[in-house]
Formats: sequence, structure tokens, C-alpha cells
Amino acid sequence: MIRIGITMGDPAGIGPEIILKTFAEPFPAGECIPVVIGCGEILARTARLLKIPVKIIPVKENAIPERLENDIPVIEPESMPDLSKIKIGQIQKQAGNAARLFIDTAVSLIQKNHLDCLCTAPIHKEAMHLAGFKFPGHTEYLAHLTETREFAMMMEGGGLRVVLLTIHTALKNIPRMMTKELILDKLRLTHSFIPCFGVREPRIGVCGLNPHAGEGGLFGEEEEEIIIPAIKQAKKEGIGAEGPFSADTIFHRMLEGDFDAILAMYHDQALIPIKTLAFYDGVNITMGLPFIRTSVDHGTGFDIAGKGEANPLSLKAAIRLAALLETHKKAQERR
Amino acid sequence: MIRIGITMGDPAGIGPEIILKTFAEPFPAGECIPVVIGCGEILARTARLLKIPVKIIPVKENAIPERLENDIPVIEPESMPDLSKIKIGQIQKQAGNAARLFIDTAVSLIQKNHLDCLCTAPIHKEAMHLAGFKFPGHTEYLAHLTETREFAMMMEGGGLRVVLLTIHTALKNIPRMMTKELILDKLRLTHSFIPCFGVREPRIGVCGLNPHAGEGGLFGEEEEEIIIPAIKQAKKEGIGAEGPFSADTIFHRMLEGDFDAILAMYHDQALIPIKTLAFYDGVNITMGLPFIRTSVDHGTGFDIAGKGEANPLSLKAAIRLAALLETHKKAQERR
Repeated sequence: MIRIGITMGDPAGIGPEIILKTFAEPFPAGECIPVVIGCGEILARTARLLKIPVKIIPVKENAIPERLENDIPVIEPESMPDLSKIKIGQIQKQAGNAARLFIDTAVSLIQKNHLDCLCTAPIHKEAMHLAGFKFPGHTEYLAHLTETREFAMMMEGGGLRVVLLTIHTALKNIPRMMTKELILDKLRLTHSFIPCFGVREPRIGVCGLNPHAGEGGLFGEEEEEIIIPAIKQAKKEGIGAEGPFSADTIFHRMLEGDFDAILAMYHDQALIPIKTLAFYDGVNITMGLPFIRTSVDHGTGFDIAGKGEANPLSLKAAIRLAALLETHKKAQERR
Repeated sequence: MIRIGITMGDPAGIGPEIILKTFAEPFPAGECIPVVIGCGEILARTARLLKIPVKIIPVKENAIPERLENDIPVIEPESMPDLSKIKIGQIQKQAGNAARLFIDTAVSLIQKNHLDCLCTAPIHKEAMHLAGFKFPGHTEYLAHLTETREFAMMMEGGGLRVVLLTIHTALKNIPRMMTKELILDKLRLTHSFIPCFGVREPRIGVCGLNPHAGEGGLFGEEEEEIIIPAIKQAKKEGIGAEGPFSADTIFHRMLEGDFDAILAMYHDQALIPIKTLAFYDGVNITMGLPFIRTSVDHGTGFDIAGKGEANPLSLKAAIRLAALLETHKKAQERR
């Protein structure tokens, strides 16, 4: 049985609500044991507020139970701070601090082999910074905790799996951030990770940067100078990389079965097709960590927190996917 | 009854085939009279080759008949060159020259009021250039013939209508091509054109250039410096422009009914969602011409020409859309 740790994220955001809504219905990931790493009191308070009929069951890290209908097993951090004064929908130092503790606890439980993998609810950058957190985001912090140097973000949804070469950067800086080495790093990571989807010989389609993938140098030279040499080198290493292909048609080609993953050059190139096809149930995956980690693809939703309006579909999809990836990973390790 | 001129495009490409396939089935545009401006011999030859059961009927420009089942009414240019030596699937001067003549003839027929609007099959840039054609493409040539100075490309498909600010340009040049005036021009054109879809007070969503539409200047300044001032000015002029919005979620919002059109900053931002949702039946529309013009969203397909593999869905959608747009345009003119 796969034991999935679900971090509660920022206690003032929609994390508690989407967790409650997920546990209130038949569980999405089949044969797995989901455990929330968070604050039982906040969960209980949110359940009362939103009238969600679930029961919070405090559990110990070394005594994680099989799941009971509508019960939420919760592990709290050892030094759980008092969150009774947390206000819903606000940026608070205490909330940021707690969100960090949930992550620390979850990672430590995985490292101690009490849990197999991780699924994270959203944290709030500013609240984290108030609490002294010095990392750009969730992913970088997880990389730090696990001493991971090479990692990459993959978005999954609507039948697509898209890896990002660059993420939160102004469009005008993308060309100068692109290097052959960076592309190779992401291709290597993707090649090793895709078998967790049950695919043995992954075919990776690589997007061009420019319209029509540069049309032979007519609309930009990054394809010829950077992308093509990287693909050639990847092929030499036995990686099934192909391209660069025009970014407007490559996603259709993946839907038709031509690729198992796509490497996109920048944020919107990757996120436009995912969010257009799968607005509510996209999943963010971190490749390169020593364990499987999935995440919702949305933020803390402070504007709707506490109103009962939060949509749990992305969390459900993220849990389902973590279970799937972990299953294939385990099967692979046994081979 | 709406009379639609369908130019045959490059005689060596898939234009003749998709026209034949379109006419071989119940016609897609309901109450309209479609007329092909092209070469009867090439159409007849292609029909024999691919065994498509249609009859080619030569007609005179001033005697365009109502459509008969499975018949293709064809108007040839006055000085029709001999195309009997044209080879399928090759770049040829004669073919480029003929493609140009079809466009000239169609525009002249619209100007003489023998036809109402235009739907174009694909031409081949290199064949056109061999024939002395000096324009970057179809659209610029139509603008030249009609002395149109302000025009813009809209792509339609999958429930989306997306106008392009920049088109065939390297990604690194996009930021410096963006100006407040250019955005305003496209917003004004879109505002006047959208009523042809039957929408009276168009809401136009404007994409940001950068991830998360710049996130308040964190990832790029084009939103603050160029896009927001343009939207403000547009609003002053009574144009229902809104944004800039994050490009990864704006298309979902249009599908949910928030907008009647979207202004995208560059080629892939516009084309990725369209081609992902509507790979086979996207339509290219030119706004700003004195008449309605739609076009297929694909090329001449020289690699598959003559093989019977060409998909007519984009042409069918383009004809259907030309008829719809012309209907609303006429209704508007009557008001």
C-alpha cells in the first residue's frame, strides 16, 4: 500500500477546504493510504464552518492506519504552534511558519520511511517570507531539504505532460536563459522520470522557441544554435528526443499519441495548452527529487478561502497521480 | 443569398482536393452560393485521379447559378494560362502565377458585386515569389489590392477567436515590436469586426506578454508600460477591452463566456490554444478588408498533394464562417 503525505499548505488558504472536500467523497487514488500533515484544529474548524461531514483522527507517525470512510488521519508537527488565532484569507507569519513545518515534517517522515510520497497543498510566498523562508518557492525548498541539485517542473493535465525549461521569467529574458546544457539537463531528467508513468521508452517532443520552430532560421536562430544541438546530444545518450517542432501543433501531436512528454521553452508555452484543456484538474509534478512529489496547480486562493467555493479537483488529481507514479516507481525498482 | 468566391490556391497543392471533397458532400454553409475561382481542368483532373464524384460547371461571372447537387461552379480568370503541365506537389512559377490570378479575379468579382465575400485555399510563398509576387503573404496582397492600411489576423476554432498583435517574428523581437498604438489599432479593428459574429457589445480580453501577465512588474514591464495604457485608452474610446490577463487562463475564460475575442501578443500565444482545441478546423480571418475574407489555416501540403489524404475540414469551416460573417455584416448594414 502506498502511503501518501498530503501537506495542508497555508492554514489561512483553501488548503484545508480542498483536503476536507477530497476526503468527504470516495477517495480518488484507490489502493493508497493518504495522511494529512497539518493542523487538526484548523481542519476541524474548517469542517464545522463549511459543514463538511468528516472526522479528524490524530495519528502517530509510526502508527499510520489504513483509511476509514470519511476519516482524515492527521499527523501534526512535533512542535505544533498555536494556530487558534489564524485568520482565514490573510497573509500571516504564523501561517507561513506552520506551512513550512508541515513540509519539514512530511519530508522527514518520507526520509524515515513512514511515508512513500508527497502531495502538497498551496503555500503563500509572502506569508512564508514573513516567517523567514528564503526560497523562491515550494519546489526549491524541497530540493534544498533533500539536497537535490537537478530538478524540473512538469505539468500534467488534459492528456498532456509538459516539462518547463524556464518558468517565472520575463519573456524578453527567455532567449538568453536558454542553453544547450539546460535543455540537456531537462531532457535527461524527463527521460529518467517518464517511466514512472509506466512508459518504458519515452518519446520526448521538444518545442521550438519561435513561430514554426524558427522556419529554418527565418524567424529566429535559437532552434539552430541551441535546441537542435541539444537534441542531437540527447539522442547520442539514448534519449528519445525529437524536434524542435512548432509549438502550435506539438500538443495536438501528443494528444494523437506521438509523444510521451513535451519539453516547452517557457511558462506560457507549457501552461496555455494545459490550462485550456484541464483548467480544474492540472497537476504540478517535481522531477528529480528522491521521492515522488505532486502538487495542486493553483495558489492559496485567499480571496475565496472559507467560503466553500474552492474546487478540490486539482488536489484529487494530484493525489491520484502521486499514487500512480509511486506504483510504477516501485515496480521499476523491483525489476 | 450570399455568394462566396473560393479561390483554388496553388494548383499543385491540396487546394483542388479539399475543394472537391467539400463540394462532394452536403454543403456546409447552408443558404449560400459557393463559386470556385480557379482552373476547371485541374479540378477535373484531380477529381478523376482521386475518384471524387463531382461535376465541374464553367460559369460566367455575371451568370452565377444557384448551386446544384455535387456540381462545382467554376469561374476562370480571363487570361487563364495553360496549366496542363503543372506537376502535383512541386514549387512552380506557373502555379504561383495562376494562384495570383485567382486572387485578382476573385477580388475584382467582389468589387464588381458579382460576389459578396472570399474564402481562400492555400498558396505557396516560394511559388508566388518565382512568379514575381512581392508580398509576404496572401493577406498583405489582399490589403494591397483593396488599398487597406489597417488589417489584422484573427484565428477562430474550438470556441475561441484570437487576434494576433504580432505574427511571423522571432520571439526575442516581440517586446520591441509592441507599442501602445499597435495594440490600440488591433483593439479598434476587433471592436468593429466582432459584430459580424452577431455580438453587439464585444468584450475583448487582452493577454499579458509575460508569465502571470507580469505579476505586477515582477516578471517584465511590458504590461505596465505598454499594454495597460493601451487598454485604458481603448476603454476611453468605448471599446470593451479588459486585461491584461495571464495568457495561461484567458482562453479557459473565453470558453466559459467571459470574452467575445482575445488579443494575443504573439503567434504561439494565439495558435497554441486554437490548434490544440481545433487542429483540423481552425479558420483564419482577415479583419479590416472591405469584404469578409476567411481562409484555411494550413498550407499547400505539397507532401500529401494528389494522394487523397488532405483533410477538408478547415475549408468547410472557413466557408461556413464566411457565410455567417457575411450574414451578420449584411444585417448590420441594413440597420
